[in-house]
Amino acid sequence: MPLARPVITLTTDFGASDPYVGVMKGVILGINPQVSLVDLTHEVRPQALLQAAFLVSKSWAYFPPGTIHLVVVDPGVGTFRRAVLLETPKATFVAPDNGVLSHVLADGGAIAAPHQKDHLSLPEGFPAFSLTNDRYWLPPVSQTFHGRDVFAPVAAHRSLGVPPEELGETVADLVCLPISSPRWEGDILTGQVVHIDRFGNLVTDIPSSTLSRGAELEVQVGGRCIRGLSPSYAAGGHLLAIVGSYGTLEVAVKNGSAAGELGVGLGETVRVHRV
Amino acid sequence: MPLARPVITLTTDFGASDPYVGVMKGVILGINPQVSLVDLTHEVRPQALLQAAFLVSKSWAYFPPGTIHLVVVDPGVGTFRRAVLLETPKATFVAPDNGVLSHVLADGGAIAAPHQKDHLSLPEGFPAFSLTNDRYWLPPVSQTFHGRDVFAPVAAHRSLGVPPEELGETVADLVCLPISSPRWEGDILTGQVVHIDRFGNLVTDIPSSTLSRGAELEVQVGGRCIRGLSPSYAAGGHLLAIVGSYGTLEVAVKNGSAAGELGVGLGETVRVHRV
Amino acid sequence: MPLARPVITLTTDFGASDPYVGVMKGVILGINPQVSLVDLTHEVRPQALLQAAFLVSKSWAYFPPGTIHLVVVDPGVGTFRRAVLLETPKATFVAPDNGVLSHVLADGGAIAAPHQKDHLSLPEGFPAFSLTNDRYWLPPVSQTFHGRDVFAPVAAHRSLGVPPEELGETVADLVCLPISSPRWEGDILTGQVVHIDRFGNLVTDIPSSTLSRGAELEVQVGGRCIRGLSPSYAAGGHLLAIVGSYGTLEVAVKNGSAAGELGVGLGETVRVHRV
Repeated sequence: MPLARPVITLTTDFGASDPYVGVMKGVILGINPQVSLVDLTHEVRPQALLQAAFLVSKSWAYFPPGTIHLVVVDPGVGTFRRAVLLETPKATFVAPDNGVLSHVLADGGAIAAPHQKDHLSLPEGFPAFSLTNDRYWLPPVSQTFHGRDVFAPVAAHRSLGVPPEELGETVADLVCLPISSPRWEGDILTGQVVHIDRFGNLVTDIPSSTLSRGAELEVQVGGRCIRGLSPSYAAGGHLLAIVGSYGTLEVAVKNGSAAGELGVGLGETVRVHRV
Repeated sequence: MPLARPVITLTTDFGASDPYVGVMKGVILGINPQVSLVDLTHEVRPQALLQAAFLVSKSWAYFPPGTIHLVVVDPGVGTFRRAVLLETPKATFVAPDNGVLSHVLADGGAIAAPHQKDHLSLPEGFPAFSLTNDRYWLPPVSQTFHGRDVFAPVAAHRSLGVPPEELGETVADLVCLPISSPRWEGDILTGQVVHIDRFGNLVTDIPSSTLSRGAELEVQVGGRCIRGLSPSYAAGGHLLAIVGSYGTLEVAVKNGSAAGELGVGLGETVRVHRV
Repeated sequence: MPLARPVITLTTDFGASDPYVGVMKGVILGINPQVSLVDLTHEVRPQALLQAAFLVSKSWAYFPPGTIHLVVVDPGVGTFRRAVLLETPKATFVAPDNGVLSHVLADGGAIAAPHQKDHLSLPEGFPAFSLTNDRYWLPPVSQTFHGRDVFAPVAAHRSLGVPPEELGETVADLVCLPISSPRWEGDILTGQVVHIDRFGNLVTDIPSSTLSRGAELEVQVGGRCIRGLSPSYAAGGHLLAIVGSYGTLEVAVKNGSAAGELGVGLGETVRVHRV
């Protein structure tokens, strides 16, 4: 049963200089004029699947149940890779099957994070579908822009209540990428920088739930060492560690850019020591 | 007859650092609260009329019939230039009369692309109007921001069903800019770079329909030469030619920026040879 | 009484690379699915309270009466500072109590601009409320993102018609920042650059109403001197002074960036002489 005013979010690496995102919205509104469209971000680093996977997994829970999340980071467009729709208990995801849903699945406990790229079996309650029914696409389908020609129209039809079984065939597994699932090894916890925000804060994939053990902590990144967690950006010293808005460990520089000052980028290792 | 939820798109060179676009939306929603607003892009290079003309012409067809497209790239604001509304069989355009609708008219077959800036007569089915009825404007009209004071309120009133004849006087011609209409001269086809996307791909105005002649092709741009067309960005070599998402010839660098690597900007000549 | 389709605007310093703004919209749509959401700008310079204060004060009047304006520039998040809701005769503002509403109050004539940061008493017709009723928040409230956890849900509930008295306690004053209230001292008027737009135009806080005295003017900024006001960006010389789209004095370079050419930033003093 469709919502009275369903919400569709859009996450891409398209940037703001092209009308690509606007065109996807035009396709959607032509199919379902009642939809509310929300941009998550279109500034994913080009083809950075894990960054998109992280950002979407940290955002979807803030939307009304049944919201459809379109994720179009698609370096393999035009080659063989499946287009998929994933239903979870509270949200729907439409994306290429290239690992961009890894964090949604792992953080939701549906799968254990793999150590290498792999097809992972989906548990009960997470049905997925390969989008093969071209009746719900926008012809002619190009080689370069399935966001417009496949993903957008499929999401719009789904928002009208078209059942997922009608949009394609059930699949038993989805591609997942190796994501660090931070776990204490003795007194050391290892994670990585998965995102850099506008302020240059280094966002890691180390969840606050892992950190809160009462012990004194020391955070190591980019050759620097930070003692303890700050309760706020305003408190703490020049370089500080904090649980940020994503609910994970962040490294920040007060009134400055940690990424700039430490010379650190996506994928950089972050270590936490119990002292 | 107005749509139940009419769509208005916005294309400007205003960028994201000012609330100018938001203010235009406020004016529109004050007149018609039911409208769905979609940004095409606000990152048109300042005052780049032909870039805006190209991007709008490649986007409008993906929107529901009757969508109103606001195009505010307006270097002549405050001097004498007409403000116009153009009705085409499937869409409405509201813009300054400075050539920013050239590609919409030429690609639609309404006019033959001119070799120099000119006033071109409009054919049957393409009525245009000079926006002179200040009853539909937002007073007081500034010298600097007709997007807010003239174009936005006129588009909103049009979306409510106000007939175009009420908004101003019929005009028989519109200003058009010289746009390259790629045509084979012997075995050579000449076009130009009309847009550079986020990935640094060089987007040309050479339509795929012109290219598809079965022959082997060689693309020359910025002193470099590319043999053949790639079926996808993932296929092909480091530097590749491809029919992109705009349906025109693009030159791309795999996992890199063609604009950066070739040192090429808007307006650069692109030649295609049959070999 | 709530509007049929209420409008909520968003102004932040979050930029476009994070889904923070999208997440705030998700929270709002989960509470009130009928709302129309409009971005003013998310490119406020990080923590630049006066820039945000200026931009919001120059935008709100273009929105339908009753529009709710969310302003989240919040360097003190997680420390003690009140979260407030301000009702004015035509609009509602939801923001941290850190001075970001200074221009809304001063330009509206509610207060006289202070010379230093101060708590200023609010006059009749401008009731304000400290947002203390956590029943209208999104639990658990983080230390770092009150935009999502406090301001967005409160704005959404207000748009449904929840009375402000229900959202918190009446307060008699709000924090205001020292803002230059340009006033002639003899033949000299002193203001400052409060914003730099996409084109590099230097936007000042000197309102056009102060300038229009019929006299010949000379504008001094960044060691340069401009004689007289131009009627449009197209008219006038290379470097020109003009009343811009904000209704204040701007300094512009024709087809170029005044900020770049003059090496001038936010806060720079601007002097106008009567000659």
